[in-house]
Amino acid sequence: MRLFANVDVEAHFAPEKMKKNNLFTTDRLFCDVYCFEPGQQQSPHSHAASDKIYYVVDGRGHITIGDEAHEVSQHTAVLAPAGVPHSVGNPGPGRLKVLVVMAPKPS
Amino acid sequence: MRLFANVDVEAHFAPEKMKKNNLFTTDRLFCDVYCFEPGQQQSPHSHAASDKIYYVVDGRGHITIGDEAHEVSQHTAVLAPAGVPHSVGNPGPGRLKVLVVMAPKPS
Repeated sequence: MRLFANVDVEAHFAPEKMKKNNLFTTDRLFCDVYCFEPGQQQSPHSHAASDKIYYVVDGRGHITIGDEAHEVSQHTAVLAPAGVPHSVGNPGPGRLKVLVVMAPKPS
Repeated sequence: MRLFANVDVEAHFAPEKMKKNNLFTTDRLFCDVYCFEPGQQQSPHSHAASDKIYYVVDGRGHITIGDEAHEVSQHTAVLAPAGVPHSVGNPGPGRLKVLVVMAPKPS
């Protein structure tokens, strides 16, 4: 099992849509780095029984949790509680990297 | 319930020992920022049934997971699986800030 990861090394982007790069997966959680090219987004969705933490590693974007929408940048942390719709967007012009931890891992 | 937090604003240090600053707490997880002055550490410990993610926000330090010890710096992510002893130290000379997500929240 991998225990240490360099987020910069693992942060791969894709031209067609935002890319999720897994760092760690256990029975209790997963940890990914989500990479958004300018114009890419994660559409509004929710998880019935899992909470999610976002942490902006690099870049700027918009995150909406329920009816609360904020511009976010490096060092912003965000909670998406279970059952609450959430979305992430990168209006550009730069790239956006977001660390994501979700627990429990959805089955 | 708070949904957005600026980690830089929430990162408080204490002269006597490393300081844990809570950002979010739910029934399923907590998210803190741990702040280490030079010379401060979190001693080796383990959690029987919770996994922890560390992510280095700022500074340099040492993290040990089981028998694997690494120097860590900004953009290093680390998994401390349930039952495995783990510790964090800041040998200095700078300050160290580490984002922590643990799931499930220990009872």
